[in-house]
Amino acid sequence: MTLVETKIDSKPIYNGNIITVSVDTVMLPNGDKAEREVARHNGGVCVLAVTAENKVVLVKQFRYVTGEELFEIPAGKRDSKDEDPYSGAMRELEEETPYFAERLELLYRFYPAPGFCDEELHLYQAIGLQLGSTRELDDDEFIEVYEFTKEEVLELLNNDKIHDGKTIIALQYWLNKE
Amino acid sequence: MTLVETKIDSKPIYNGNIITVSVDTVMLPNGDKAEREVARHNGGVCVLAVTAENKVVLVKQFRYVTGEELFEIPAGKRDSKDEDPYSGAMRELEEETPYFAERLELLYRFYPAPGFCDEELHLYQAIGLQLGSTRELDDDEFIEVYEFTKEEVLELLNNDKIHDGKTIIALQYWLNKE
Repeated sequence: MTLVETKIDSKPIYNGNIITVSVDTVMLPNGDKAEREVARHNGGVCVLAVTAENKVVLVKQFRYVTGEELFEIPAGKRDSKDEDPYSGAMRELEEETPYFAERLELLYRFYPAPGFCDEELHLYQAIGLQLGSTRELDDDEFIEVYEFTKEEVLELLNNDKIHDGKTIIALQYWLNKE
Repeated sequence: MTLVETKIDSKPIYNGNIITVSVDTVMLPNGDKAEREVARHNGGVCVLAVTAENKVVLVKQFRYVTGEELFEIPAGKRDSKDEDPYSGAMRELEEETPYFAERLELLYRFYPAPGFCDEELHLYQAIGLQLGSTRELDDDEFIEVYEFTKEEVLELLNNDKIHDGKTIIALQYWLNKE
């Protein structure tokens, strides 16, 4: 059986800088119709960055919509759907932390919220992390940089202190290696 | 330094079944103003379910907004912000798979997309998984149930076959235990 849903119609709702919202009418696998609320997003990039001292670099940031300050791996939006995620990840690492990477390796690509949003995240691991980026935040971005050992990360994860999905993925990956 | 952003104004855009969208004006930590695109969501629940044969239960589902069929752990939305996530997770496990659980243990709670959406996901592990639920899908829900060994899951993860964030978290957790 195919599970595919086919678009019949799309009603535009909102065109923003982060999300574009529509309500689409689809044909279900059984021939019935249904409505789907759709948020389109350029996609994002994020980086697992581990220092020579074997500490992971996290940023703390107030996330307005959650009402909480969250620990997150360095991350950001792609400027457009066409922007190469690799370059975007290099840029976000340098903008948000004092570090840059010689190169990046893709760990996973995934949808954080596939029920309604097409945002795709590319998660990279930084190789050859070095101090020396000239941090440049957006005008409305306020973040603090932290570094944690594996023991500290395990403690944070086990004590309900990491509330960002992509960051849990990256930290689990790091803890499991070796 | 506080990183908090304070709401000054909120402009309603759309009130849907899944998301409610607004554009909020906030006061930044430095006193400047900025706009935040906000999608409000009741939150979701998901379950890492492992059978007596040590296989994990995944469901395959076409996710319209991604254009892909995704392997995911059993999951669903909370009926309201007030619905107890524990009960919601029990319900979704029984609705989407042939299994039910004696009880659930909370592994993580996290925001999948904290840049614009307040959806919070509660990820549980099923304890005492047993066959015998009477599967009951929503009218517009079409899913297939799969079971995979740890070796198969490792292969899926390493070969770019798992594209859902919450599922990567659950599978990495499972692989790392023991």
